This record gives sequence, C-alpha cells and structure tokens, in this order.
Amino acid sequence: MKTTNFDNKPMRIGAVGLGRAFSIMLPTFNLDPRIILVSAADPRGEARSLFEKIFKGRAYKSIEALLDNEDVDVIYIGTPVGSHLDQIAAACAAGKHLLVEKPMALTLEDSKQIIQLVESAGVKMVVGHSHGFDKPIQKTREMIESQKYGPLRMISTLNYTNFLYRPRRPDELSTTEGGGVIFSQAAHQVDIIRTLSGGNIRTLRAGTGKWDKHRPTEGAYNVFFNIDNEINATATYSGYAHFDSDELMEWRAESGKPKDTTTYWQTRRELNLKTQNTSEEQVKFSQTFGGQNYNLPNKNEQVDKLHEHFGLVIASCEHADLRPMSGGVYVYSDNERTFEKLEKPQVPRAEVIDELIKSIFQNENPRHNARWAMANLEACLAIIESAKKEKEVSLVHQIS
Amino acid sequence: MKTTNFDNKPMRIGAVGLGRAFSIMLPTFNLDPRIILVSAADPRGEARSLFEKIFKGRAYKSIEALLDNEDVDVIYIGTPVGSHLDQIAAACAAGKHLLVEKPMALTLEDSKQIIQLVESAGVKMVVGHSHGFDKPIQKTREMIESQKYGPLRMISTLNYTNFLYRPRRPDELSTTEGGGVIFSQAAHQVDIIRTLSGGNIRTLRAGTGKWDKHRPTEGAYNVFFNIDNEINATATYSGYAHFDSDELMEWRAESGKPKDTTTYWQTRRELNLKTQNTSEEQVKFSQTFGGQNYNLPNKNEQVDKLHEHFGLVIASCEHADLRPMSGGVYVYSDNERTFEKLEKPQVPRAEVIDELIKSIFQNENPRHNARWAMANLEACLAIIESAKKEKEVSLVHQIS
Repeated sequence: MKTTNFDNKPMRIGAVGLGRAFSIMLPTFNLDPRIILVSAADPRGEARSLFEKIFKGRAYKSIEALLDNEDVDVIYIGTPVGSHLDQIAAACAAGKHLLVEKPMALTLEDSKQIIQLVESAGVKMVVGHSHGFDKPIQKTREMIESQKYGPLRMISTLNYTNFLYRPRRPDELSTTEGGGVIFSQAAHQVDIIRTLSGGNIRTLRAGTGKWDKHRPTEGAYNVFFNIDNEINATATYSGYAHFDSDELMEWRAESGKPKDTTTYWQTRRELNLKTQNTSEEQVKFSQTFGGQNYNLPNKNEQVDKLHEHFGLVIASCEHADLRPMSGGVYVYSDNERTFEKLEKPQVPRAEVIDELIKSIFQNENPRHNARWAMANLEACLAIIESAKKEKEVSLVHQIS
Repeated sequence: MKTTNFDNKPMRIGAVGLGRAFSIMLPTFNLDPRIILVSAADPRGEARSLFEKIFKGRAYKSIEALLDNEDVDVIYIGTPVGSHLDQIAAACAAGKHLLVEKPMALTLEDSKQIIQLVESAGVKMVVGHSHGFDKPIQKTREMIESQKYGPLRMISTLNYTNFLYRPRRPDELSTTEGGGVIFSQAAHQVDIIRTLSGGNIRTLRAGTGKWDKHRPTEGAYNVFFNIDNEINATATYSGYAHFDSDELMEWRAESGKPKDTTTYWQTRRELNLKTQNTSEEQVKFSQTFGGQNYNLPNKNEQVDKLHEHFGLVIASCEHADLRPMSGGVYVYSDNERTFEKLEKPQVPRAEVIDELIKSIFQNENPRHNARWAMANLEACLAIIESAKKEKEVSLVHQIS
C-alpha cells in the first residue's frame, strides 16, 4: 500500500470511467487542492483525447493499462456498476485506495467479495458521492448526536424529479443491470436516513412503480422503514418528471444551484426533440465528457452554488424538527424557529474528499466504506423484494 | 322517518354537543340556506344560554329531552366519541337522520352496532366533516376517475401541525378514550387516501410516536398503505408543534384562511401562559361556544377563505401528479403544468351538507356512511396495532 504524505503534495487520482458520474465529480477534482487528476481510463477515444488535452496526463483504454503504466494513489471508479467488481479487484491487487461511485454492486454476493478484496488489501475505499455526505445532512446528524433536542424519533423524506427522462443508456432503464430509481435514487434516501438515524434498518415495507412501458424500470416508490431505537422513516420518490419537489427546497436544484423553474416541465419534450435523429444513448454520450455537446465546468459555477440536496428531509427529534436545506438547517424547536446557516461550499462534495483523506492519513475506516455500501444496497434490494412480494422484509446486513 | 320537502323549507337540525366540533361547524350551519339550527342539547348551561339567545330555539340538557320536545329532521352529534353510540341509538329510535362527527366510534364492535341501528331505522347518516370532503380533494378524485392522466398509482400525504398543544380535555390526551392524533388526524389522511384511491386498503405498516410524557398519547406517525389496484400510499403526521407544513400549502391554514406565520411557533408558550391559573380543560371550555373567551364566527370571515385542506397531498397518476391546494388543484402532467382553480366557497364545508341532502332527498347511501366510517376507523386501529406489534396488518372491513 502506497500513500502520499498529504502535507507535501496532493493525492494523485486515476479516474476510471469518464462518463456522467465523472462529469459531475469533475468540479470537485478540479477545485479541491488535496487531490489531483493524473491519469484516466475510458473506452471512448473522444473522452481520452479531451482528458489528455486538459489534464496533461495520459488516458488509457482500461484500468489494467492505467495501473501498469501510472503511479497513482487513488483509483476513482465511475464506470457502470457491472464493471465495479473487476475494477476494484484490479485496484486492490495494485494496493490502490479507492473512491467508487454508488451503487458499489448490484448483489450482496458481489458486495461481500468487494469487502473481502478491500479489507484483505488493506486499502481504504469510500463509496460515493451520495447525498448522505451533504454538509446539511452532516450538520443535521451532528445536531441529532448532540442530543440538544432529545432523541430522534421519525424521519420523512420526499423527492420528485425528472430522473427517468434524462437521456439514458439502455442499461440505465433495465433494473437487472442496475437501472431505474431504486439503485440510483433510493440509494440516496437510504443513505440519508441511515446517516441520520444511526444506520440500522430492521425491516422495511415498500411499493414501487413502473408506469412507462417504454422505460420499463422502477420510476417511483414509497417506503416505510422500521429502524433501531424506536425510529421510523418514510421515503417517497418519483422520477416521472411531473411535480418538482425542488419547490419545497426554496427552488434550489439537487446541485445546490438556483433552479430554472421553466425547464423542468419541458423534460419529455426536450428528450423527444433530441432523439428525433439520434439514439438516446448517443444523446447521452454527446453530453458527457468528451462528447460534442459537453461543456467543461465553468470555473465560476461555484459562485451561486449552495450545498447539494436530495429533496425534502424532516428529521423529528422529541423537541425539534430539523430540516436540512441547501443553505443550512431549519430548526423548528419547542420554543423557537431558527436557521443554522452553513457557509457556502468552496469545493462541491468536499465532504467526500474529507472522508477519503481522513481514512487514508489517519488510517480510519471511512463511514461510507464497503460494509456501509452493502447495507445501503441491502435496503435497495429489500425495496424491490418488498414491493414484489407485497410483504415486509427484514434486513440483516445493517451496520451503524 | 320524517323528511322535509327541501324545495319548501330548510332541514331543521338539532345539535347535540355544543363544543369545539360544533363551534367549527357553526359557520356552515349559519350560512347554508338548506339547513337551519332549531334546537340543541348540551350539559353546559352557558352553552345552552348562548344557543337560546342566538338561535331563538330551545336548548336541552340531553338528546332525550330534545327528541321528546322538538320536531327536527336531522340530529347533529358533536359530542365526545364515548357518547356517540347511545345518542345515535336515540336518534335512530326517533327516526331522525344523522350528521355525526368523526370518529364515529372507537371500536369495530361499536361501529357494527351503529351500522345495524342506522340501517334498521332506515335513516341516513353522514359521518363528517373530514378532509376527504374538501372540494380540492373531490376535484382531484374527479380528475382521477376521468382517467385523463391514466390510472392512479401512488399517493403521498404529509402534515405537520400544532395539534397536540391546543388546549385539551384529559380524554383528548388518552388514546383509549379516543385522544391523540390517530383517531382525530390519521382519520383525515385515511379518508383522503381512501377517497382518492377508491377505498380498499389491503394492508398497512405504521410507526407511531408518543414523545411527551405529559401528553401521553400518539402525537406522530408514519404509515405505508398497500391499496387495491396496485396503488400504494404514505401518510406522515406530527402534531408536536415544530415544523408547520402549511408552508407547503402556500401558507393557507387548515381552515383555508391565510395563515399567520408568527403565532404557530408560540403554541407551547401560549398554552403555558393560559394554564398558569386555570386547568387546561377550563381553558378549552372558555374558548368553546358559550365560554367567556368564545367569539362568535364573524359573518365576513368567508371573505378571505379558500377551501379547507389537510396538508400536502400528491396523487401520482401515470401521466400526472395532482396536488390539491386550498384554492384548486395543481396538475403537473407529461407536458404541462396547470392549475385547476376552484371557486371560493360561499359556505364552508358545503360538501357535507351536499352529501347529507342528496342522501335524504334522493334516497342514496351517502359516501361517508357508517360502513365507510368503520373502514376509516379500521385503518386507524390498524395503525396503532401495526406500530405496537411492529408488523404489517391486514384490513378486512374496507369498502369502496
């Protein structure tokens, strides 16, 4: 296992997969002084060319080529979930730390293999970003842990987005390949609920919705969670591009940017227009890093940005409801209403890098480690199972 | 069974119980030309005096005295739930139609007796008001039934109020006597969900919260509903006077009036101040019809009033999310966002009188009949049972 000395120089990252997840993480890689992108791997030539042009580092066709030729400290994996296990195995064999996009895996079996690989190799692996990392959620967790408002008792989460009608690859519309809102979106609400409540979901009961035969995967769900310490929670989600719950978040988008309220309603129309002469997959690629319609992140885009969010979250302690927003946390307590304002983020998703660096340099187990990720996945799989069997499902791989 | 001819003169109502429920129904009784309050019964002398002064009719100590001495068409029952069965029996024996406040009863056994009494007597009984009557909910139901937006698939409901910290009688803080938010508030969300979805809840899974030992009854809950026709729903409620979800209803209060956003946060303080030298029960009585701090409804209060509501409701059809508000229904559909504005109500809760009159003069079974009320109660009892046993509960008395 190799580590850099953080005091001397930034950690060198090799980015495997230059797709949409990478595009969204790019401002973090660009702006956080503790890390530096030094090389990449992606099957798409356009993406490799753009990477080499911008970052002056080399881009390879595969993770193996990258590992053979480059000296990096951390492998970032932003590929589709089907590739994760093999790529994590390769990185572990090379003794590299890992930052892996969610979902880490699609099965508990693969998750167990990954845990085994990472723990045997003695490397650190953080799974994220997911919205449990968001500063307002972390702040809410601190307020809960302080016990200032008594014990946490109930959580309500709700998010209505246009998720299902953004340009998609075919696998993103196939549940068995990790598509749909359960693996991608429920994973966020589960992460938030587990982050706030301590982590141990005992059982859940869910219903899911597949309402568009042309996009035959889950696009919506309702879930009840029974959690340790007499806590219960609900999660409601629809990605069918109807109601936009960013209205309940003071019109901040998931990214923390001010939301343009006029475009959301056009989601289906826009998708139809774009796909008149091109496959949807091509549309997606064209908007992704290296694609002809891809725009590099604007260096000034942080200016208007508050923290990321994932829709309405209300955490009810005995003596206050806590409501994380993009800009801070509303506290509605027994006798007053206050807003715990948070500083604007200098670097988006800096919390992910915080956790990664802390785990490496203080040799700590990161919160969002492989076991935590498996527990999140278990909850997502249980949502699908509960809806299918129309019964409550018990969870056995939860950790706090 | 006696009926008036509605074309000739208004239906004569005898009001049994002049407490808070009556106070809230009073504007309806005053303003709806199809009905007239002619007599009353209440054990409190102040209430009887005020009634006789205002309405020129006689007020008695008991329903029996009222029935012995007065010729009325409809008995309104607004007494605590413990008296309902006997009073309904008395009214049925006299062949009177009934308007009964919810909850109709606290047990399925009492409900069955009431059904038997009402159906044998051949009278009509409407149980309400409850928020399933509200015009925006009825409008949403019509839009669902029109199938314009495809089948209904999912409902999310959420309400955060100060319910538990309004001045209460002791029985209102005792679950076994019908106190707490399950019988009083879940009944509304259940009524809304059943009204929108068709009515047949198959199972539910719930958690409840009793967070204040000085008010030892349920003050909060989270529920998942599995409903016929592949519909699922969630209901979230807290009455702990923290977050105020009227913020999500464009700052309209439950009554449909503009909400004063400064007073809600003072709920506990206000209750403490008022009860420094008086019992809470006395405070409540003093604010109720006939009490020294009671104010008769202002004749102009309809001016600013839109329709009543019960917090956030989002009904997701395959091609649109429908969101009933105080002033109408937002439609977030595949390709547009519209607002189906409703006319301002001339008479609050006119929908209750509509249903009562229609049932009597067209000899129809009202939607909110005793069997519907028993089905609502069954769901409320199941919420308590599910939370206690930590398991899903099947419902067997549901009707559409």
